[in-house]
Amino acid sequence: MSPTPATFASPIKPSSWSWEATNEEISARYGVPIERVVRFDTNTSPMPPLQVAEMLAGNEWDVPVSEYPPSDYARLVEAAAARYRVERDELLVGAGADEILDLVAKTYLPPGGAAVLPIPTYGMYPVLTEQRGANVVRVPRLGASDGFALDVETVREATRDAHLVWLCSPNNPTGQAEPPGRVAELLAGLLEDARAVGRDAPAVLLDEAYAEIAGDTLLPLRFEYPRLIVARTMSKAYGIAGLRVGFAVARPETINEIAVYRPPGSVSVVSVGVATALLRDDELVRERVAAIVDERTRFAAGLSDAGWRVQPSLTNFILVEFESAEEADGVAEGLLSRGLIPRTFPDGHPLAHGLRLTVRDREQDDRLIEAAAEIAIRA
Amino acid sequence: MSPTPATFASPIKPSSWSWEATNEEISARYGVPIERVVRFDTNTSPMPPLQVAEMLAGNEWDVPVSEYPPSDYARLVEAAAARYRVERDELLVGAGADEILDLVAKTYLPPGGAAVLPIPTYGMYPVLTEQRGANVVRVPRLGASDGFALDVETVREATRDAHLVWLCSPNNPTGQAEPPGRVAELLAGLLEDARAVGRDAPAVLLDEAYAEIAGDTLLPLRFEYPRLIVARTMSKAYGIAGLRVGFAVARPETINEIAVYRPPGSVSVVSVGVATALLRDDELVRERVAAIVDERTRFAAGLSDAGWRVQPSLTNFILVEFESAEEADGVAEGLLSRGLIPRTFPDGHPLAHGLRLTVRDREQDDRLIEAAAEIAIRA
Repeated sequence: MSPTPATFASPIKPSSWSWEATNEEISARYGVPIERVVRFDTNTSPMPPLQVAEMLAGNEWDVPVSEYPPSDYARLVEAAAARYRVERDELLVGAGADEILDLVAKTYLPPGGAAVLPIPTYGMYPVLTEQRGANVVRVPRLGASDGFALDVETVREATRDAHLVWLCSPNNPTGQAEPPGRVAELLAGLLEDARAVGRDAPAVLLDEAYAEIAGDTLLPLRFEYPRLIVARTMSKAYGIAGLRVGFAVARPETINEIAVYRPPGSVSVVSVGVATALLRDDELVRERVAAIVDERTRFAAGLSDAGWRVQPSLTNFILVEFESAEEADGVAEGLLSRGLIPRTFPDGHPLAHGLRLTVRDREQDDRLIEAAAEIAIRA
Repeated sequence: MSPTPATFASPIKPSSWSWEATNEEISARYGVPIERVVRFDTNTSPMPPLQVAEMLAGNEWDVPVSEYPPSDYARLVEAAAARYRVERDELLVGAGADEILDLVAKTYLPPGGAAVLPIPTYGMYPVLTEQRGANVVRVPRLGASDGFALDVETVREATRDAHLVWLCSPNNPTGQAEPPGRVAELLAGLLEDARAVGRDAPAVLLDEAYAEIAGDTLLPLRFEYPRLIVARTMSKAYGIAGLRVGFAVARPETINEIAVYRPPGSVSVVSVGVATALLRDDELVRERVAAIVDERTRFAAGLSDAGWRVQPSLTNFILVEFESAEEADGVAEGLLSRGLIPRTFPDGHPLAHGLRLTVRDREQDDRLIEAAAEIAIRA
């Protein structure tokens, strides 16, 4: 096979992930001592599970850290299968859900293909689509009064010529889940459309990063729609974002398609060991989620009392809407000047007038509530 | 932009990484107790540095493990820059060198493009090329009597229509470095060819996974050839393969091209912390490499005494050649039946008549030497 003419230029100019400013950069830019900087922008947990420190001290893993992780991650897969109530051959391990998303893009997006993106949503989906040389077909979600839900008919129509649909429920950054039956309705429609023209159904990635916090999952839909891939992560409710462990859950034939692209071993031996133990713990997530939900209620009430328009949330973050992008920018600056880092949205983003705030611990959240009250008074 | 017609089939059928059998699988298949299984097939170190256990027990990282790693890996980059004697903007961090290779493929290989592969070499290069939808142009290396060195003229000719060249020195699985000046000669030729037709030079990935053990590096060539990317890893001499830390080193303009594809944070907070400390240690690698080289000499002598044809090595592994693929297969079975896992090469591979053996510790290597003597007697 003869190669295409070599241009020696980067073949496409995809977008890149927008890096958050580091704690050091915020500290320097705003003159805040670094120990006073708090990240409200990454939707992590305020602290890891207590047993992580014990496990690190024990230094007992499947293999010593001088060896590569086991190629089948067997014990981790077994623990995850039991926790998610799926079969072991329905699971694939990744370095965080982010690696799962990359593998799905590699598997299902041909160069020049298309992925449908209901917006607003997580920023990595369009980045990965463009990095694969594929086109992003953006479809607006319904408005705040409709819980930012999927517009099923429009998504379905946009998917007729597409290879992949990026879903996220509960959705980031809107914080709400799809209404009951909404995703099932979309999948049934996609199946119907595919059958009508005699082709395989498109792949659908459903990111359930916040499923444990919401207390619900759409995993059973994989039986009705075999090209549904559900991404799960240990970065949110499990509190080990820094250890980079995530999973794809799908029917075995779909996992096998994705596994072609799995690298020789991207998850650290330490991460594998810690994640396995945490997944085996029957009480851990229940306790952690209860604490997150209680604190979310308190945090949301505090922000509302300061006059902020708080959206409902099923996650560990809260979306706040302001009157305008200018007002949101002003509030963000006020927070940053106190070392409190909100997630902002750029000009042109459907939520440019909003800020997204992670639920952290009582002391940190109180600092933000206090700042909200001060900023409101000055405005 | 209108998408291409959706076929809903995987766009290409790339090859996948060939997974090693796990310790459990070998134990079950050959009836060897699992604690007697030793991996001679992955070129890892026999043990991690002693300070790793201390660091894990201390549990002090840039951020808690509940947070994502710092987006700029600033302290790790600083330590690596000092160690490799490069500038900080000449470095990019990855989850092992394997992630660096993936990022390079994404950056420089367009679908339908071509990558030149001097063979035999590391198996991930063709996999990543095909996964990008690009073509692999295989060019045989010179023979064992020429140290399996690059055939410069043939590689240069093959690269006229290619986008990327995969180099590895010292090369895996042959264990030897390119002769002095050989890579520089190739790069000068590639520059000349590119200039002759008025285009940019192709990217060249030089994998230096074993550079510390060989005691030499070709990093300075990046000044002569700005599209040279050198991959370095902490999986070999540094002994932390299980923590997944690697680097790309290149001129800043090249790093910037690759950084577009860098994911939001693939390296664990724990791995970042341990790697930073190890890179800051001035004595560590010197001591570890001295031990590896001593043991390699002893191991090679033992295998030679058993009548095996041992190739010279500048790495932590030894290539052994047999008379035929059948003989190599027989020896491999003999080793596996004792729980000793060699690296084998499939039918049709230029080294199908060989085995690759990692230098491990004295006790483990003695088991292999003893097995070699027994297998020779039975043959």
